[in-house]
Amino acid sequence: MKRQDKDLAFMLQYENIAWYEDGRVRILDRRSYPAKKEFVVCANHQEVAKAIKDMVTQSAGPYTAAPMGMALAAFECKDKKENEQLQYLKQAADTIAHARPTTAKRMEIVCGEAYAAAEKAILAGEDAARAVVSRVIEMNNERYAQIDRIAGYLTAKFPDGGTVMTHCFAETIIGMMLRRCREQNKTVRLFCPETRPYFQGARLTATCCKDMGFDVTVITDNMAAFVMKNEKVDVFTTAADAICCDGHVVNKVGTFQNAISARYLHIPYFVTGAPDPGHPTVDTVTIEMREPEGSLYAMGVRTADEGVKGYYPAFDITPPELVSGVVTDLGIYSPYALNDYFKAAGEGRNKVVV
Amino acid sequence: MKRQDKDLAFMLQYENIAWYEDGRVRILDRRSYPAKKEFVVCANHQEVAKAIKDMVTQSAGPYTAAPMGMALAAFECKDKKENEQLQYLKQAADTIAHARPTTAKRMEIVCGEAYAAAEKAILAGEDAARAVVSRVIEMNNERYAQIDRIAGYLTAKFPDGGTVMTHCFAETIIGMMLRRCREQNKTVRLFCPETRPYFQGARLTATCCKDMGFDVTVITDNMAAFVMKNEKVDVFTTAADAICCDGHVVNKVGTFQNAISARYLHIPYFVTGAPDPGHPTVDTVTIEMREPEGSLYAMGVRTADEGVKGYYPAFDITPPELVSGVVTDLGIYSPYALNDYFKAAGEGRNKVVV
Repeated sequence: MKRQDKDLAFMLQYENIAWYEDGRVRILDRRSYPAKKEFVVCANHQEVAKAIKDMVTQSAGPYTAAPMGMALAAFECKDKKENEQLQYLKQAADTIAHARPTTAKRMEIVCGEAYAAAEKAILAGEDAARAVVSRVIEMNNERYAQIDRIAGYLTAKFPDGGTVMTHCFAETIIGMMLRRCREQNKTVRLFCPETRPYFQGARLTATCCKDMGFDVTVITDNMAAFVMKNEKVDVFTTAADAICCDGHVVNKVGTFQNAISARYLHIPYFVTGAPDPGHPTVDTVTIEMREPEGSLYAMGVRTADEGVKGYYPAFDITPPELVSGVVTDLGIYSPYALNDYFKAAGEGRNKVVV
Repeated sequence: MKRQDKDLAFMLQYENIAWYEDGRVRILDRRSYPAKKEFVVCANHQEVAKAIKDMVTQSAGPYTAAPMGMALAAFECKDKKENEQLQYLKQAADTIAHARPTTAKRMEIVCGEAYAAAEKAILAGEDAARAVVSRVIEMNNERYAQIDRIAGYLTAKFPDGGTVMTHCFAETIIGMMLRRCREQNKTVRLFCPETRPYFQGARLTATCCKDMGFDVTVITDNMAAFVMKNEKVDVFTTAADAICCDGHVVNKVGTFQNAISARYLHIPYFVTGAPDPGHPTVDTVTIEMREPEGSLYAMGVRTADEGVKGYYPAFDITPPELVSGVVTDLGIYSPYALNDYFKAAGEGRNKVVV
């Protein structure tokens, strides 16, 4: 399998994010990447769901891992009767899509697409697992093309020689954005808050920026406002785990407070992605509360004394008043006018996850 | 030596913070406390200055460690001629007070007091080291009495059953504040951001709150705004490394962004302490930039890949517009009216460090 773009960092390649082959799914373990380059091997689709729940892969990683899990489910049930296969795959789609609550709407779309591909193959008497893998590649290529267009609109807002702050990993958009900068001979330097508790910013975002040849600095999460002010950040940008149609942005915890600081310091906050038809308003969002103990450890080392409580919301919600623009594949929209995106996109756009 | 108050946590006792005896100063190593209860032993005053620079003790810890270092300096030069002793001690005061730049003004006052005590003893032919230790105890008791009054004014602003967020260690005021709550039968629960890179919030503040018998939860630094909003924080409060007379507050990095979030969410931010006559305006403040690599490690474990830069401002500056009140030993003042504090305090108050 050829990499889509040799410049994009290792972990951004879908065949490394997660890959189905020979009755198992191999997932890059981002919990320890880049310190270690290890893979978790899943022998059934339930293990794939568990790996997603356990954050073996996160950010947009599950949008590859989940349908690869569906390919595995198709393999698991291949000797059953046709209607039993379909029933088995429906159940698998439900299990995998709901591994984590906050992104379930997007995951339902992805698993639904995988299911449709499997169903078509089964009814045609073809290899369903192989059909699903083909569909995953197709979906990822569509998604990457979309993200590349987003990167074009986003980087047009970066001044040359400017300073950009991210938050959390931001997956493919980081690589695409930096490739666009390079194509335009535009220099930017990046500040990445480390993104506790999992350090995705320190481990993943920063590695990606460095691999792309850019000047990148990791800060701890409590330095964001200081850096925005003292290092003259021009743009704060993040991806999102959900963009509600009413303009609320759901993203890694910390996005909210960074958006508040950005607003206070007159720095625009651009969120990348597309509105989620599954979330007409913020009321349909469930914020995942992970094991409280998670906030009492850093890189596996206990920080607080016994008897002290932990607390761990995985995401937070940034209201539209703090969002300067939603950067989509069709241009930049006001968070208060996201229905215009669907009008511009026409039919079928709600099938795509960005 | 009897503890000042058996309820205050171990690390708040000045004989544990730092103690001079028999030609050496022993300092509680807060870099590893409470996981380990270890002491750094300094054989001369330069080692005391280095220990302060290396953050063996921090927060208000240096206000005990520094004058204990002066006692050690007095021991070091005790066999010199009188004027040579005084010269030696002047030099020692300068070395110790300037171990770190941001708190140098307060440290000059503390070391100056220690110098005065040593000078008086030397001229009277008495044991200067012992005289300095006596003065340290006296100063700390004065300071603790002041902080207790501050705690009274501060806790009057806590609703019973309320939720309080701190940032960074906050030293003695935390213990005093909780003792006041207990005396008033007032229940509060506390949220402590972990305070990267050193985790003072997770390790020190939270331990102190727990030891005092209160409900305490550690969050990562990117969760502050989420918790303020979703857990209905009533009051955000911190101590300060400097309170400028123009109302700018210098405190552990992260205070600024938490104050921005608190303002956005209509939560009052109270800073405890007294204005620093050494800082008539914020222009005299130097923000200490520590080794950049410091932000690339967590609990001693490397987080980011090689080739990624670090960045490490130890403090930040919160402007008066974000400060709801400066809680002093003489009452709560507007950050825009701090000269009133000096008027109320009368002569000599600028000798005291809170």
